[in-house]
Amino acid sequence: MDTVREALIAHAEGRTTVPSPLHLDFPDAEGDCHVKAGWITGSDTFTVKIATGFYRNNRNGLPSNHGLVCALDARTGQVRALLNDGGLLTALRTAAAGALITHALARPDATTLAVFGTGEQARLQVTWLARLRPLARVLVHSRALHRAQNLCTWLDTQGLHARPATARTAAEADIIVTTTPATSPVLEAQAVGEGTHVTGIGADMPHKNELPAALFGRAQLIATDDHEQCIDHGDFGHAVRSGTAGRHTDHPAGLLLKNPPHRPLNAITIADLTGVGALDAALASVVLRNLLP
Amino acid sequence: MDTVREALIAHAEGRTTVPSPLHLDFPDAEGDCHVKAGWITGSDTFTVKIATGFYRNNRNGLPSNHGLVCALDARTGQVRALLNDGGLLTALRTAAAGALITHALARPDATTLAVFGTGEQARLQVTWLARLRPLARVLVHSRALHRAQNLCTWLDTQGLHARPATARTAAEADIIVTTTPATSPVLEAQAVGEGTHVTGIGADMPHKNELPAALFGRAQLIATDDHEQCIDHGDFGHAVRSGTAGRHTDHPAGLLLKNPPHRPLNAITIADLTGVGALDAALASVVLRNLLP
Repeated sequence: MDTVREALIAHAEGRTTVPSPLHLDFPDAEGDCHVKAGWITGSDTFTVKIATGFYRNNRNGLPSNHGLVCALDARTGQVRALLNDGGLLTALRTAAAGALITHALARPDATTLAVFGTGEQARLQVTWLARLRPLARVLVHSRALHRAQNLCTWLDTQGLHARPATARTAAEADIIVTTTPATSPVLEAQAVGEGTHVTGIGADMPHKNELPAALFGRAQLIATDDHEQCIDHGDFGHAVRSGTAGRHTDHPAGLLLKNPPHRPLNAITIADLTGVGALDAALASVVLRNLLP
Repeated sequence: MDTVREALIAHAEGRTTVPSPLHLDFPDAEGDCHVKAGWITGSDTFTVKIATGFYRNNRNGLPSNHGLVCALDARTGQVRALLNDGGLLTALRTAAAGALITHALARPDATTLAVFGTGEQARLQVTWLARLRPLARVLVHSRALHRAQNLCTWLDTQGLHARPATARTAAEADIIVTTTPATSPVLEAQAVGEGTHVTGIGADMPHKNELPAALFGRAQLIATDDHEQCIDHGDFGHAVRSGTAGRHTDHPAGLLLKNPPHRPLNAITIADLTGVGALDAALASVVLRNLLP
């Protein structure tokens, strides 16, 4: 958490190098590959991370996601390590970034969390946020009820009170976190009440979209982990293109972590996270400090 | 040669996926990192290639260049192989692309070659072109005369008649190939005679520039290995921005290899090569076919 917090602040303060991600599509195989690079200025390691998602792999008994993190020496360019982590570092830094910004922007007294989606990030976003604040109740929405039930059963084992919910009921929670691969909004803007905080985690390509543009029009505070990335392939970009949010109405998530904003209790707040390469570099540095002499 | 020829043609015909390269700069260490990806549509392997150049490494006895080629399965996204080739595949595909397009565009009777630069690509461009056509004489230009002499000595051992030359004399050769990291033109446009072919190999970043913009103004035929890349960080881009070449006056190198153009004997022709990720993918596929069951 501390590493990710510091990296988000460094990124917001311009102390990172994060080129635009590179991606390739393989339409016939329903696959894609993303490459993200990042460096925190002055640190000893930078990373180039290759991540693939091939969504027919389960037909062959293979996982959908593969990839590796290449950690290179920022003084010599030599490869320091290849971390064949199966996406673990990405999952953890995404969980940490989501929990940190959700906690920073949600009302202090907000204790009801709704999560959209039932995958690894749904699990992590709930449990990591629960480390930062008490959650009295967790609502889980999925288009497949049995998946929502399974996640609730697991969350119960973690001491959280969870139950499946319709999209409508979930939209009425104090805190909403979306973790789906949706290509059209998963909740209705009008169903979201005043005082709600919403964090969007899932959008990582231009055609993906979880949060309705109209919700941005109602928000009093919009946080993005990277302005350009969120314009290019985040929910914020959809809102900007549809005209419900101005192009420069977002605030860097890292600055909001460093200096928590005054938040009117009835304000709607949104965080749009697309995943910043500098976080990969920060986490890889920590891993290498622990693994290498 | 055949693999690179086919890959250049595939790229020119739109049968490749080649995202814009990603790069990071490390100004304090005089270093940079480039990531190039490529796929030839329908082939079983795509590549993500990480290449670094850290130009103070020689002070510590390390090579300046490092990197590796990650070959991934285009049907599942799994990593098939990491080729820790020390830049060999890049050197070979660059040599092949240069030799092929130089041979295709130079006058059939051109036998005098001048090479600017004395590094690995200078050596490879000369020897690989010599496989495709007889070279009666090779002129080597370097700002450091002893380096030019060393390369000439080595070329002599390869059966080539080579001697050092001033930039002015070198510019009068029938064929000119530039292989330097120059950031301002290495030859004078007016010193280049009618009927000359010039291939630029060195420019791989926006601030690099080997060929004078005025030379493009005199050229009757301009070939680029990738239109967008050459606009962004090739010599062609400098000429376009300076107004001596129209933005759409270039021809895809692959199409010129497939259908050799009619070339007036007194025409000046130019090839600007920036290195296309699809060639890496093509070469890696061949390597894996030879290495793996």
